[in-house]
Amino acid sequence: MSYTIDRQVSGEFDEVVDKATKELSEEGFGVLCDIDVQQTFEKKLEEDFREYRILGACNPALARQALEEELQLGTLLPCNIVVYETDDGDVGVSAVDPEVLLSAVDNPELDRIAEDVRKRFDRVLDELPEA
Amino acid sequence: MSYTIDRQVSGEFDEVVDKATKELSEEGFGVLCDIDVQQTFEKKLEEDFREYRILGACNPALARQALEEELQLGTLLPCNIVVYETDDGDVGVSAVDPEVLLSAVDNPELDRIAEDVRKRFDRVLDELPEA
Repeated sequence: MSYTIDRQVSGEFDEVVDKATKELSEEGFGVLCDIDVQQTFEKKLEEDFREYRILGACNPALARQALEEELQLGTLLPCNIVVYETDDGDVGVSAVDPEVLLSAVDNPELDRIAEDVRKRFDRVLDELPEA
Repeated sequence: MSYTIDRQVSGEFDEVVDKATKELSEEGFGVLCDIDVQQTFEKKLEEDFREYRILGACNPALARQALEEELQLGTLLPCNIVVYETDDGDVGVSAVDPEVLLSAVDNPELDRIAEDVRKRFDRVLDELPEA
């Protein structure tokens, strides 16, 4: 089973990042962490890399429920959606599949929350324009 | 198999965060993402929560190798170390076990990198003062 939900989308890279951020917000997720991987590698390694952004998405109410169930779960949070240039020069978007991610955690109380987040991520990705 | 490596440590909460950040730096990890969970829940939910920080740690050279192997891997990055108040009022530190995390990814090329990160995280945690 893949650990990600993937889409090829149309539009410019920055537009896709903005649209994904907006759609995450509609589903109650703030972006608590926004890592520009290309810029980080340029700064730290002085090396070129494709455009690549990691958006760490957190729905505070669901995160709180999950952390009450499982204190160490913060090691797996926030749940990321990444936007990147594909090998063909298109724009790809991948979300971590929270159900696969949380399968590493032996706590059935989390299953309902993971399923909820998965459905929200599916809706976010469905709102992005298909390539 | 647990998905985290856990320690109870001595010292004040903020001191432990600073010490963990310093030790991560010694192992080549920058903290690219620093989430104050208590403050986030207070601001977004108007609810109290224990002290809890998520430090998203990235070793750029290793991250680059990993992303060259597996483009979607950014959905699982950075690797987190969390610092939190325990139920007993002590300070706990947990790191995600990168070997367990990457077991969700069917790519044997990543095993060596996960093992390297795991050893570095072990050394970081070993440098924190035991409770």
